[in-house]
Amino acid sequence: MDLLIKNGTIITSTETYQADIAVKDGIIAAIGKDFPEDGATVVDAQGKLVLPGAIDAHTHLAMPFGGTISADSYMSGTRAAACGGVTTVFDYPVQRKGMSILELVNEKKAVCEKEACIDYALHCCITDLNGGAILEEMEKAVEEGISSFKCFFVYKKEGMMVDDGTFAKLLLRAKEIGAMINIHAENPDLIDLNIEQFQKEGKTSAWYHYLSRPEFVEAEADKRAIHWAKSLDAPLYIVHMADKEGLEAAIDAKRDGYEVFVETCPQYLEFTSEVYKREDGRNFVCSPPMKGQESQDALWKAIKTGGIDTIATDHCPFQSYEKDWGKDDFTKIPNGCAGIENMYPYMLAAANEGKITFNKVVELCSANPAKIFGCTQKGSITVGKDADIVIYDSEKDFTVSVDTMHSDYDHTIWEGKKLHGYPVMTFSRGKLVYKDGEFVGKPGWGQFVKRVGRK
Amino acid sequence: MDLLIKNGTIITSTETYQADIAVKDGIIAAIGKDFPEDGATVVDAQGKLVLPGAIDAHTHLAMPFGGTISADSYMSGTRAAACGGVTTVFDYPVQRKGMSILELVNEKKAVCEKEACIDYALHCCITDLNGGAILEEMEKAVEEGISSFKCFFVYKKEGMMVDDGTFAKLLLRAKEIGAMINIHAENPDLIDLNIEQFQKEGKTSAWYHYLSRPEFVEAEADKRAIHWAKSLDAPLYIVHMADKEGLEAAIDAKRDGYEVFVETCPQYLEFTSEVYKREDGRNFVCSPPMKGQESQDALWKAIKTGGIDTIATDHCPFQSYEKDWGKDDFTKIPNGCAGIENMYPYMLAAANEGKITFNKVVELCSANPAKIFGCTQKGSITVGKDADIVIYDSEKDFTVSVDTMHSDYDHTIWEGKKLHGYPVMTFSRGKLVYKDGEFVGKPGWGQFVKRVGRK
Amino acid sequence: MDLLIKNGTIITSTETYQADIAVKDGIIAAIGKDFPEDGATVVDAQGKLVLPGAIDAHTHLAMPFGGTISADSYMSGTRAAACGGVTTVFDYPVQRKGMSILELVNEKKAVCEKEACIDYALHCCITDLNGGAILEEMEKAVEEGISSFKCFFVYKKEGMMVDDGTFAKLLLRAKEIGAMINIHAENPDLIDLNIEQFQKEGKTSAWYHYLSRPEFVEAEADKRAIHWAKSLDAPLYIVHMADKEGLEAAIDAKRDGYEVFVETCPQYLEFTSEVYKREDGRNFVCSPPMKGQESQDALWKAIKTGGIDTIATDHCPFQSYEKDWGKDDFTKIPNGCAGIENMYPYMLAAANEGKITFNKVVELCSANPAKIFGCTQKGSITVGKDADIVIYDSEKDFTVSVDTMHSDYDHTIWEGKKLHGYPVMTFSRGKLVYKDGEFVGKPGWGQFVKRVGRK
Amino acid sequence: MDLLIKNGTIITSTETYQADIAVKDGIIAAIGKDFPEDGATVVDAQGKLVLPGAIDAHTHLAMPFGGTISADSYMSGTRAAACGGVTTVFDYPVQRKGMSILELVNEKKAVCEKEACIDYALHCCITDLNGGAILEEMEKAVEEGISSFKCFFVYKKEGMMVDDGTFAKLLLRAKEIGAMINIHAENPDLIDLNIEQFQKEGKTSAWYHYLSRPEFVEAEADKRAIHWAKSLDAPLYIVHMADKEGLEAAIDAKRDGYEVFVETCPQYLEFTSEVYKREDGRNFVCSPPMKGQESQDALWKAIKTGGIDTIATDHCPFQSYEKDWGKDDFTKIPNGCAGIENMYPYMLAAANEGKITFNKVVELCSANPAKIFGCTQKGSITVGKDADIVIYDSEKDFTVSVDTMHSDYDHTIWEGKKLHGYPVMTFSRGKLVYKDGEFVGKPGWGQFVKRVGRK
Repeated sequence: MDLLIKNGTIITSTETYQADIAVKDGIIAAIGKDFPEDGATVVDAQGKLVLPGAIDAHTHLAMPFGGTISADSYMSGTRAAACGGVTTVFDYPVQRKGMSILELVNEKKAVCEKEACIDYALHCCITDLNGGAILEEMEKAVEEGISSFKCFFVYKKEGMMVDDGTFAKLLLRAKEIGAMINIHAENPDLIDLNIEQFQKEGKTSAWYHYLSRPEFVEAEADKRAIHWAKSLDAPLYIVHMADKEGLEAAIDAKRDGYEVFVETCPQYLEFTSEVYKREDGRNFVCSPPMKGQESQDALWKAIKTGGIDTIATDHCPFQSYEKDWGKDDFTKIPNGCAGIENMYPYMLAAANEGKITFNKVVELCSANPAKIFGCTQKGSITVGKDADIVIYDSEKDFTVSVDTMHSDYDHTIWEGKKLHGYPVMTFSRGKLVYKDGEFVGKPGWGQFVKRVGRK
Repeated sequence: MDLLIKNGTIITSTETYQADIAVKDGIIAAIGKDFPEDGATVVDAQGKLVLPGAIDAHTHLAMPFGGTISADSYMSGTRAAACGGVTTVFDYPVQRKGMSILELVNEKKAVCEKEACIDYALHCCITDLNGGAILEEMEKAVEEGISSFKCFFVYKKEGMMVDDGTFAKLLLRAKEIGAMINIHAENPDLIDLNIEQFQKEGKTSAWYHYLSRPEFVEAEADKRAIHWAKSLDAPLYIVHMADKEGLEAAIDAKRDGYEVFVETCPQYLEFTSEVYKREDGRNFVCSPPMKGQESQDALWKAIKTGGIDTIATDHCPFQSYEKDWGKDDFTKIPNGCAGIENMYPYMLAAANEGKITFNKVVELCSANPAKIFGCTQKGSITVGKDADIVIYDSEKDFTVSVDTMHSDYDHTIWEGKKLHGYPVMTFSRGKLVYKDGEFVGKPGWGQFVKRVGRK
Repeated sequence: MDLLIKNGTIITSTETYQADIAVKDGIIAAIGKDFPEDGATVVDAQGKLVLPGAIDAHTHLAMPFGGTISADSYMSGTRAAACGGVTTVFDYPVQRKGMSILELVNEKKAVCEKEACIDYALHCCITDLNGGAILEEMEKAVEEGISSFKCFFVYKKEGMMVDDGTFAKLLLRAKEIGAMINIHAENPDLIDLNIEQFQKEGKTSAWYHYLSRPEFVEAEADKRAIHWAKSLDAPLYIVHMADKEGLEAAIDAKRDGYEVFVETCPQYLEFTSEVYKREDGRNFVCSPPMKGQESQDALWKAIKTGGIDTIATDHCPFQSYEKDWGKDDFTKIPNGCAGIENMYPYMLAAANEGKITFNKVVELCSANPAKIFGCTQKGSITVGKDADIVIYDSEKDFTVSVDTMHSDYDHTIWEGKKLHGYPVMTFSRGKLVYKDGEFVGKPGWGQFVKRVGRK
Repeated sequence: MDLLIKNGTIITSTETYQADIAVKDGIIAAIGKDFPEDGATVVDAQGKLVLPGAIDAHTHLAMPFGGTISADSYMSGTRAAACGGVTTVFDYPVQRKGMSILELVNEKKAVCEKEACIDYALHCCITDLNGGAILEEMEKAVEEGISSFKCFFVYKKEGMMVDDGTFAKLLLRAKEIGAMINIHAENPDLIDLNIEQFQKEGKTSAWYHYLSRPEFVEAEADKRAIHWAKSLDAPLYIVHMADKEGLEAAIDAKRDGYEVFVETCPQYLEFTSEVYKREDGRNFVCSPPMKGQESQDALWKAIKTGGIDTIATDHCPFQSYEKDWGKDDFTKIPNGCAGIENMYPYMLAAANEGKITFNKVVELCSANPAKIFGCTQKGSITVGKDADIVIYDSEKDFTVSVDTMHSDYDHTIWEGKKLHGYPVMTFSRGKLVYKDGEFVGKPGWGQFVKRVGRK
């Protein structure tokens, strides 16, 4: 054995039990008791929880957006991820017009090969079918381990929006080849209408960012996406769900037997639209924006009742000076916030205070994204899986601060958040990459996660 | 008195009773018994039903469409209407780009002044806001008696579609000024996707007209329209509802207290999509197309339970040679069918055979359109209202044939339809315009119905 | 003509218009203008509303209950009714064990013949099937004009409850013979459980009357009754609906095409359970009790959207000294409150302030009960109907007080209620029975309303 | 190690993977690869599936019912269970009037100590609160490992029914002390009404057993039970759900966050009410009866979408001569059928043919009953759990026949059922109790499963 994690309490999505874990060649080789140490590195997890590493299924690293580039590179982003107990990151490269899927993927793989501190997978954002060529290429992409594709119902002016016909084509093709379509659901026309009106009225603070994309503007797009998925009987994954009405439509679709999966993000669970009234409201500007208390309550309830399938971050931080561009005009604020290092600690702290179970956190942050997106080696502490493991000290107190984070951004919406319980070690395929507040891994360690398509 | 209708059974939307009706100056002056005849024209309605004239709230007369012009002029169309017991017709002129509402309205009024055989009202189809000027002008239009405006969610390529933002602007403005927005709800992107696919596969018969616009393609647009109406708390009128899923969304909205009104047409109640498999399927091509049995059943059920508010015809016939353009390519078939002379007889026959009550027919075909669209002088046999009255012989048998109709078209989808019970007289403001199969009125008699806005 | 009501504004459930009404032999003979006076009594209703008299479809006059007899006799009760614009009262005599329907009915008719100041109809409360004989007799009862029967799901200990099997038998029989089953829906077991618990804990104030029969205790019985009616496809009328959840189940059943009718009472629209915290809370004790604000809001909303079919009073007042029996023990308070003279003025005042339309009030308080319960001569101002007419002065201010009421009770829950608008005259079959605060009719005038069964 | 199961494919409710299992002292000691054999018994499961033993959460062994005693003793019943891959049985002893819980439990434990071939747990059926003493005693029972109690909404005449008040008291008490209430939901009044009617009409075949307890009669009771559970916010477990409408109510409650658990049985998944038309229909008589195709479809769908939590058997066989008592009168047929040995093979065969996943079968038949009912040592192949393990050969073909079953009954409704795939070994706490068609365990081996209450 190479590594022996002893005496801990293992948490999976369904079980909680005491056992030791033996790791060999980056793989979980055995679970049991009294294994011979045989020169292995021994970690004593007595009194600690032993969890599968989290999978952050939604990040935007080094992404050109809003006139700049998101603040975390693949290097700093995956470094921060590791320090937050994340062992696999799904990034969302965006197709530029005319580009093929594999061009885009290869471009990103080349960067990640050097920079990635943990394993990475890629969804691919489709903005144009290239006259149909993209539909053809999707099958090849699935073979190459890219089995999910994202569309935007927004960003019409930015040329990223797909219309309903394109969306339907993607759903049908994905269904055919065992891929998944992810959707960013908001309605651009209503957003533009609201913005036009607010600009006319001189309403330019961050609060109007929220008011230009309120609950019903997100809900319409959620419902429309679900309608097409149901009508075409194709699987659908809705990213960053933030409103109650859309969520309920998704829950109804699930109940009726449709494969509609729902992701939400920690920011929607922690903050409401009230943050946009703050002096620093612009720092919280992301799309969709945080919603009202009723939506937040619905999200928490759905977490408990199976309506939410995954938690991911939509990590897309920008620097303060960039956020400041929109000080006097919310439309100029680059959209996005940090979260990659905060998700797992935040959700685990919720379990630690009894709001949900630890098993549920593992299900949402690790087991489900692995299953939904075909990461066969990830998502569980099970013999034969990758030894992506987090040791969690449920007694450790931690206060989030930009100074203790491992990203390259200069501020965080999580500043000052007190968490009871915190990860103390992260192993990526058996290798220690984070320990007691320090990143101890290295860029280039992370490997591409080649995923399998849906049966 | 000018006219005395004696001994008949009066039917209103809520009452059925025996009484005589005295008419003076085109107005219902008194209802009772034993009125002195005083030289009035006396009509003995013994054994007959006496009904308010129907209001056909949806026609397309002399409309340029599909590369030609619909087959009925304002003259022939309103003549046929009179012979079918219709005493008010709502036509749908379509704004050409750049045109103002009142230009359009005045253009049509000039024609109707000469041609209209019965009273007429105008909805106005908005295809372009003219940079906002139309929104401004709407208030003036309401003052002029034009208190309803229609949008298309389809006809994108034809330049008639409005996007969601424009639709929302119209809803908000209509709400503000007491107007109503009518919507033709189908999704153009999915239609185009389907057509593209069928053309690729050489599927060109009328059956593919249906398959290119199936239930779920209409339902999406219904649900989206309703979503905006509910979210913006604005009244909405959905024209020619033909599918179950959209209908149910409307019914739910009503139940929740929203002002969502639903119109359907006799063709959806009589025919299903099976007609498109017929040799002459192209003659039945209209949009939305007839749907499956399940939708038809839902429409009839909703008629009974209050889910449908009005019946109208979407009268838009074309000549056989025009329909033949699409013999080998359904996309070339001009969309539309005849109905203006068939609606009231068809619905009354349904009552006559016990499927629904006569009161319900009056509610759907006369009382409700009058109320929803602000025709204060129409829709009921009540003292003070216009004497728009139909005498109905519930024993008379009639078989519909193009030869006995009073339109200018050369064929009809209703050919051969046997009806038990038929109108024998129609009075327009006290004047006999139809008797026993003959039109006895004259062009130019019809007056513009100046409507009042909503509260 | 005997009576001419001139210059008023006539209100029916669907129309509002100016016309004169001519009455002959107690019947509305004609509606129009400029009728010759011919020695008729002329009433100038200029500036007033002319409404059909209300039908109070739910009263308990001279009813033995709670160890005493309800405070209003058929004489005083119908006198008060007339003074509140009610022209037909439906009383609820209760079958004593072993008694036949017609015995019960004849007993009551004998009393009413002498005492009734306005027309009266009788529902019949069935507490025992007499081994099946009642089921047989029901058909005869319908022929005699008794076409509705009520059951209790409560009052188990009192021997008045029917079990689900008996209820089902009644529904099936009623469906067969064109009768209607009315249900008082609350669950007795849960009430008893709560009372037992409260008595153990010494909780004896009127507030615990409410807490022993809270929303969900009524809702269960509503839902159960609706379930049986739907499953057996039989019509059902739910009396005094007071809770949101049950109401919503009824609304869903309606939407699905079932004949489920819903009655509520003015007390549920005006008061909430908060009244039970008052010093005089016991005076408000009735069953079901007033519920929380959410239920009241749902009732008002359903009034607007068609979910409520009728308003009736459940008039069953007791004297103060009787109410006082329960001063220290809510279970000893006779259940019931006054309302017969307040319903129409209360609802009309709601219309007068714009909360609903006057047409809606006529629909709920007159047209619908007439239709649902087969009173063919009542419920509308239409030629040929009984001249049951109320003249309403929408400018008259009135404050309810026990002193100005015409019942025999000594207090009222409506004390101090200010109403803007009030009836100034009531005609019963053309005879003036109430004028400007005074009863001007006489006992014995009222006739039995022989109703027709459901087709 | 005592036992080593090598080379198999392990199936848990969430994972499928290759690994070996080492067992010591009846406990799963380790999962991994290449464990030293050390004199352990080695089982080669190459090519086989290795599953946790099933938990049959619903049996009636040696139960006095219908004038006789069910055909399987604790000995023969648990023997058959072992041969069908069941390693824990939950029996349902029924309280006789006046009896305390622990009297009943101890009576059964005394028998099981001698007879049980596998581990056993006990729910306890409550028929009478003994004046409240039972409510008191429940807490003690939970401490003794009896944490679930069943009520009947049926069997009114048999004196087993509880009324709604008693049911509510049990729910409230269970909630308080961490217990679960199980409910048999059918409505006795409607059943009696139907039986009375059928007997009057001479309709006595088994088909009328179904017609006397059709879908809506079960649905009412399901909905009522759920209503109380929701209103009182107490957990509820509905046994043998067989109808669509009740199931949907349960699914809605789950969606709304209530702890409503649903069990169904293999017979409802395999047979429909059509079986009652068969010559031997009486052999299929159980309560609730099999329902129509629509209900069966709904059950399978709910299995896939999470609406069903557990599968259990309601095993309660009777001998042919006893079933024959009702040859000419369905009311004389003892209610109940066999299933204990068929459940796991049946469900696994469904997985084997691709209808559902093997993981889902493990979830329904093992993991979920363990979790819901507090069997902390059961329900999963996890280190530290009891080595209750089944080896399944997915290639083995098997035809069910009374001759190859291990019960004491003389016929089975499963006769002739062909299954592709069948268990070849069952281990109970590491001890082989079944192998290749033979029972190899012994009576008395089974131990009482002391369960823990809900948090």
